[in-house]
Amino acid sequence: MSVADEFTLDFARPERIGLEEAIFCAGKSPDQIDAILVAAGDRGASLLLTRLDPEKCSRLGHAARLDYCPVSRTAVFGQPPAVAGPARVAVVAAGTSDVPVAREALRTLGYAGRAATLFADVGVAGLWRLTTRLEEIRTHPVVIVAAGMDAALPSVVGGLVAGAVIAVPTSVGYGVAAGGRAALDAVLASCAPGITVVNIDNGYGAACAALRLLNAASRLAQEAER
Amino acid sequence: MSVADEFTLDFARPERIGLEEAIFCAGKSPDQIDAILVAAGDRGASLLLTRLDPEKCSRLGHAARLDYCPVSRTAVFGQPPAVAGPARVAVVAAGTSDVPVAREALRTLGYAGRAATLFADVGVAGLWRLTTRLEEIRTHPVVIVAAGMDAALPSVVGGLVAGAVIAVPTSVGYGVAAGGRAALDAVLASCAPGITVVNIDNGYGAACAALRLLNAASRLAQEAER
Amino acid sequence: MSVADEFTLDFARPERIGLEEAIFCAGKSPDQIDAILVAAGDRGASLLLTRLDPEKCSRLGHAARLDYCPVSRTAVFGQPPAVAGPARVAVVAAGTSDVPVAREALRTLGYAGRAATLFADVGVAGLWRLTTRLEEIRTHPVVIVAAGMDAALPSVVGGLVAGAVIAVPTSVGYGVAAGGRAALDAVLASCAPGITVVNIDNGYGAACAALRLLNAASRLAQEAER
Amino acid sequence: MSVADEFTLDFARPERIGLEEAIFCAGKSPDQIDAILVAAGDRGASLLLTRLDPEKCSRLGHAARLDYCPVSRTAVFGQPPAVAGPARVAVVAAGTSDVPVAREALRTLGYAGRAATLFADVGVAGLWRLTTRLEEIRTHPVVIVAAGMDAALPSVVGGLVAGAVIAVPTSVGYGVAAGGRAALDAVLASCAPGITVVNIDNGYGAACAALRLLNAASRLAQEAER
Amino acid sequence: MSVADEFTLDFARPERIGLEEAIFCAGKSPDQIDAILVAAGDRGASLLLTRLDPEKCSRLGHAARLDYCPVSRTAVFGQPPAVAGPARVAVVAAGTSDVPVAREALRTLGYAGRAATLFADVGVAGLWRLTTRLEEIRTHPVVIVAAGMDAALPSVVGGLVAGAVIAVPTSVGYGVAAGGRAALDAVLASCAPGITVVNIDNGYGAACAALRLLNAASRLAQEAER
Amino acid sequence: MSVADEFTLDFARPERIGLEEAIFCAGKSPDQIDAILVAAGDRGASLLLTRLDPEKCSRLGHAARLDYCPVSRTAVFGQPPAVAGPARVAVVAAGTSDVPVAREALRTLGYAGRAATLFADVGVAGLWRLTTRLEEIRTHPVVIVAAGMDAALPSVVGGLVAGAVIAVPTSVGYGVAAGGRAALDAVLASCAPGITVVNIDNGYGAACAALRLLNAASRLAQEAER
Amino acid sequence: MSVADEFTLDFARPERIGLEEAIFCAGKSPDQIDAILVAAGDRGASLLLTRLDPEKCSRLGHAARLDYCPVSRTAVFGQPPAVAGPARVAVVAAGTSDVPVAREALRTLGYAGRAATLFADVGVAGLWRLTTRLEEIRTHPVVIVAAGMDAALPSVVGGLVAGAVIAVPTSVGYGVAAGGRAALDAVLASCAPGITVVNIDNGYGAACAALRLLNAASRLAQEAER
Amino acid sequence: MSVADEFTLDFARPERIGLEEAIFCAGKSPDQIDAILVAAGDRGASLLLTRLDPEKCSRLGHAARLDYCPVSRTAVFGQPPAVAGPARVAVVAAGTSDVPVAREALRTLGYAGRAATLFADVGVAGLWRLTTRLEEIRTHPVVIVAAGMDAALPSVVGGLVAGAVIAVPTSVGYGVAAGGRAALDAVLASCAPGITVVNIDNGYGAACAALRLLNAASRLAQEAER
Repeated sequence: MSVADEFTLDFARPERIGLEEAIFCAGKSPDQIDAILVAAGDRGASLLLTRLDPEKCSRLGHAARLDYCPVSRTAVFGQPPAVAGPARVAVVAAGTSDVPVAREALRTLGYAGRAATLFADVGVAGLWRLTTRLEEIRTHPVVIVAAGMDAALPSVVGGLVAGAVIAVPTSVGYGVAAGGRAALDAVLASCAPGITVVNIDNGYGAACAALRLLNAASRLAQEAER
Repeated sequence: MSVADEFTLDFARPERIGLEEAIFCAGKSPDQIDAILVAAGDRGASLLLTRLDPEKCSRLGHAARLDYCPVSRTAVFGQPPAVAGPARVAVVAAGTSDVPVAREALRTLGYAGRAATLFADVGVAGLWRLTTRLEEIRTHPVVIVAAGMDAALPSVVGGLVAGAVIAVPTSVGYGVAAGGRAALDAVLASCAPGITVVNIDNGYGAACAALRLLNAASRLAQEAER
Repeated sequence: MSVADEFTLDFARPERIGLEEAIFCAGKSPDQIDAILVAAGDRGASLLLTRLDPEKCSRLGHAARLDYCPVSRTAVFGQPPAVAGPARVAVVAAGTSDVPVAREALRTLGYAGRAATLFADVGVAGLWRLTTRLEEIRTHPVVIVAAGMDAALPSVVGGLVAGAVIAVPTSVGYGVAAGGRAALDAVLASCAPGITVVNIDNGYGAACAALRLLNAASRLAQEAER
Repeated sequence: MSVADEFTLDFARPERIGLEEAIFCAGKSPDQIDAILVAAGDRGASLLLTRLDPEKCSRLGHAARLDYCPVSRTAVFGQPPAVAGPARVAVVAAGTSDVPVAREALRTLGYAGRAATLFADVGVAGLWRLTTRLEEIRTHPVVIVAAGMDAALPSVVGGLVAGAVIAVPTSVGYGVAAGGRAALDAVLASCAPGITVVNIDNGYGAACAALRLLNAASRLAQEAER
Repeated sequence: MSVADEFTLDFARPERIGLEEAIFCAGKSPDQIDAILVAAGDRGASLLLTRLDPEKCSRLGHAARLDYCPVSRTAVFGQPPAVAGPARVAVVAAGTSDVPVAREALRTLGYAGRAATLFADVGVAGLWRLTTRLEEIRTHPVVIVAAGMDAALPSVVGGLVAGAVIAVPTSVGYGVAAGGRAALDAVLASCAPGITVVNIDNGYGAACAALRLLNAASRLAQEAER
Repeated sequence: MSVADEFTLDFARPERIGLEEAIFCAGKSPDQIDAILVAAGDRGASLLLTRLDPEKCSRLGHAARLDYCPVSRTAVFGQPPAVAGPARVAVVAAGTSDVPVAREALRTLGYAGRAATLFADVGVAGLWRLTTRLEEIRTHPVVIVAAGMDAALPSVVGGLVAGAVIAVPTSVGYGVAAGGRAALDAVLASCAPGITVVNIDNGYGAACAALRLLNAASRLAQEAER
Repeated sequence: MSVADEFTLDFARPERIGLEEAIFCAGKSPDQIDAILVAAGDRGASLLLTRLDPEKCSRLGHAARLDYCPVSRTAVFGQPPAVAGPARVAVVAAGTSDVPVAREALRTLGYAGRAATLFADVGVAGLWRLTTRLEEIRTHPVVIVAAGMDAALPSVVGGLVAGAVIAVPTSVGYGVAAGGRAALDAVLASCAPGITVVNIDNGYGAACAALRLLNAASRLAQEAER
Repeated sequence: MSVADEFTLDFARPERIGLEEAIFCAGKSPDQIDAILVAAGDRGASLLLTRLDPEKCSRLGHAARLDYCPVSRTAVFGQPPAVAGPARVAVVAAGTSDVPVAREALRTLGYAGRAATLFADVGVAGLWRLTTRLEEIRTHPVVIVAAGMDAALPSVVGGLVAGAVIAVPTSVGYGVAAGGRAALDAVLASCAPGITVVNIDNGYGAACAALRLLNAASRLAQEAER
């Protein structure tokens, strides 16, 4: 059996669901990832790679062809579309330690050609840090909020902004917060209505949810025009 | 201390976040709920009541003024706006036992004047039940999927439709599925990108998330027009 | 063996730790509770009873001698000291459903002769409900905050007030919030520094912690005077 | 006490239950494993070694006598029977990251002389990847499905094929999926009837279950002939 | 919306996967179940109903047309095939309290026309109870073992019989055993190779797994004949 | 199939392990229990019944022949040996609410003819309650300690007495203590060396462990004599 | 985006809540920490750094300007106030392994200018170690108790001293105690009234809670004076 | 503060509870351990050290004075009593991977001067391995059983031997067995009566429990003589 039998790229995905194929690199060997890059290159396709840690990246034969970001552990292969248009998505990080997850979301949005704005370290322990930036956040119809520990920020944001709110619990914290289950449960149990949630540390998924939402909005706008 | 000191209605909510005040009735006494209804009535406001079980409803002094649905355990007080426009939200229930949660979502959308369509018992154990209705589901830009047990349906739907997908895990099931944590974890860990999640059995929250999304789409459409 | 062999009242407790003996009634039979009341009565002692549900209370032989509150499920036996002095403790309830726990704290403080103020339904989903009452809360050097679901309120309060903050997670909520573990973990993981926590629904314990603190403050004040 | 007192090989196992003795190497020291190999060699027996990581393998005195596969962390000692007959078992891996577990199953089947076919990266996020290979999978009366994350694939396969389905949840994933409990619970709670499950990452156990099943089928066929 | 929109019967199931449609009654209302029975009756189909508790059964309009077993909480509607042939499946119950789960398996097998034998109260606390019946158990190529508490029996049986072993952990027990998670984990972690597992208390699923296996064996026998 | 096929009494148990057969009644139907009593009566055997709640006891046909204790939910059938000799076992209950579990242990010891002493409500919140009775407790070579909530008492006792200490965590408590897992983990993690533990609320098992120990001591004494 | 956008220091904190800004270093990169130190230095502010492990500390550009303690993994930057006044806080460590957590509390108190006393290895397995130091502990109005494993010490202390008791469960232990959840649940479920709790290993938080309390006491003393 | 303030040796322990002081080395620094050894040496006392991993042992200043066993990670300091008398304790290890835990128990018993016998790799997957050694095991009045994974062995042993049975669940295994919670719950839920349990991997604690039991037996024998 060869490595080529071990993957099946889904190039039909954009047409079907409006999102590009992406490669989750955790659990994949460098050989497998290299083979995937070759297959995509042969087709002239670009790819987003997630959860690619620096050590594994350095062991790839095709590392030189990647645009790699060690903070978010993401890499871009090939030439995705250029970022264009106004920022429709605010990416809010409760603390400085939540920035890597926020950057994964930003990189995913950028790979899809969407502009976004980062708001970092605006957690509720010092509420003024949020309120001074609230008006600016409100200009974005979609708000992604990454927060660990008690994850109180998404609830507070959800009570203050009218846009769609996507919470990303992070694994930042220790003791009961370690691993992110406390943050996850807090955002799922949020007292602010209509907050949605993705898996712990899943900045990629939050960005994809934002893209689905923006795509749906575009479609609704087109239907309204007719 | 009187019961009137025990609640503070948030009538400013629609203006702030685009969603109406709603009353979560679990843990509230009939006295408290009656007092809340009086306060809303005095103001000429309507209210949505959730998690109101039949026994407690029957003990309310103002029960006769409610439009009550025992399946979804929701009640409407006052005169909300009439439902208008095409159905923008598909509410998909994996099994017949998931219907009460689906109906909570439908009632919440209806209370906000939004049309929606129910698709029931289309779980993956018999995949043809889904595929025969897929085109119809795809006509809705927002898809809420309620599923218990293994909650495989949201992943399959998420891989087939381009719209926004909001998964509601339900507590349907027994053994490891009892309580809904297995379903919740499955949808959070979905292999289909961009699925968002709300709390177990939270049909109300899924509908609110859909409303936030539709509101954001309206705003984007207005900005595009200008 | 007789029921009298099954309990040992700790009348030395006030002298030792500054708190009165109290009777946790869950898991005790009416016979046991009646025997305890007789023993206390024989000594001329007063008692606070907690977790006494209405059905069990009605089965007590000495129910008529109790000052019973069904909301907090507490009862007072005998003549505790009268409440005196300014309110040093604010008891804040995030939602209306958290009021029973808040009242257990208020009753315990009252039993010890301490005044306290209730602030109800000021959760973060509508932040204005908190901010409009913030100055009044700040006049109390000790703040007890009872909150269920995501329990975001204690973190927000902890970032805004200088006093001692004691969080009581409550079991209010469903899905991941059911039972109160999500609320508990959120407050333990709070990003606001110096918040302390007691067991889920433990209004009694929060009040005892406040009493220990007020006793310690009195002692410090006396030492400062010397 | 010597190392020889620390193990008791079960050479009577094939006769008793139709499965060969195998050595679970996690938690065993290189000294213990070497002594086991000597004991098997003295008897002219072959052995399958599982969970033998590369570092420990390199520290074995008898490493040179092993046929070692680092992907599946399995080793074969001695001369097992040659693989013969048509492939009766399909080993389906939901994603590329599930391949190591799938290979452990394939190696175990091969050690027992049974042919099997690998189907990799056919997860439900792109359902066409499964449906295009479905007819080929259906030619195998036994289907092992290895899947991590939400483990939706076994449910979908179970609703589409008539053969015996053995699900192996894997530890692939992060956040709520880390460790494989989410995948395990999903397959146990499957809405497709008659799916059986083995421990997380237990490719070896799934293969043994397939062998038990094929042995039972042989026995039934022999009885039918008579 | 009517009740008829809330279910979609899967009459194509036997052809597709060799198992009859069955109705999981927990979470379904009497109205829903009655409507399902009517739909099946209209088609001349028979149905197996599971998890139908006595109180709900008594509230069905069509209760009189059911063959109901309160111990296993199963009901048969219509005329399934008669039971025929030798018993191929042994259903072993570790304790007397595990009998209801064992009977659910027996009823499901009987509904499919398959004979089976019950072996009850043969748990390992008195090993002679198992060993005296071991030869008889061994005559069955498929062995279902229902066990709660520590669920040690499936491991012991798995080490003694060559047939396929399907373990059903039960919720029998208290303390750490309550709910069946301890039993489930024990059988998943079994030291005996090749044991498969179904959800807690899932006698129905164990029987379906046995049916899949017997169907696969029949198919293999037919292929061997050719 | 008849009820008689559903149990297999283990009358060989005393000879084999020195403990009498006992019947765990949870999960057994009144019909099953009655049939077991008849079978024991036919043999002239006595039986201990545990976890027999009052409602089920009242539905037994043979209830009148039982010596029933509703506090411990135990019943004795037939004529066990008379209690004789000095009390070798101290049964210590941390709180009054732990008495039912303590009584289950006392009843089990009494059924085996062993004397024991109850020490109730001596928990560590008022340490003097323990220290005033410590010398008396020390006269017993075996000490069973039943404790719920934080279960600190077994650790304190284990640091003060030289005898064998068997801890029984109880389900007494609420919040994190509900169900007894907190108490169980505390006693398993005890900082006092050599404490052993049984399942939550398992007074019966603690008594059986004490009996095994006293039997072992008798055997050692006999060997020493020779 | 630059690192400077990734943090927002809260220099208004002391005025607002009486506690200095502190930097939680886990999850922050050396670049981020260095930038924070520069920002504080520019302002002439001092900072407390927590959870700064030795390896990361050595990678800081500004390590030489820190007063670093590897046992507690804390560092002080700048010139905090000198420690003054009598020790008001006792920091009690149940075992020697709990000392690092105790030292984090001591360092935090010292950073705020508060004196405190350490009492180490006084756990309940040898109760005399506590009782011989009890009078000295009682001279402190606030008692922090750090304990892992079964965490029985806070309950015993809480029953013996009248001051405020803040329990810090630690992650010391193995098996059920690993990670500290057993210790946490034990202190939350304490049978001694009025004990408060902070997150596992959170010596910093316990000290902050003590500071809030001492601040509240000062305020009360000032009010009493007027 | 010096290291000497960080420990308090409990040399009064043997007199009080019949067990020697022992040092749990996990979480202690080499400096702390060295200081403890000096303090013991100054007193002429011997010490048992547990959980001392090889790397930390090599960093001790006094390593040369220790009798160190890397398999069990125990060390003996000084001159404990010589082992004497017949083996009263059987230490049974279910698998070869459980031997380290079994050896910790053996070393602890040997340190106390007690003889014991090891029975290794006699798990229930091959029951003959147990039954062939059963008579020899039965000659020991106390039986310690170390078992991981499903931990079925203690239940089987408990049903076959009359002596005291102390189960030590081990962390051997993967998936649901990882960490040992599955094994722990299985032995706590054992269907064999009177089995006692200690913490996961706690060979030391099991040996201490055996010593308490042997001490109690000696005392009973002495009382019987009088």
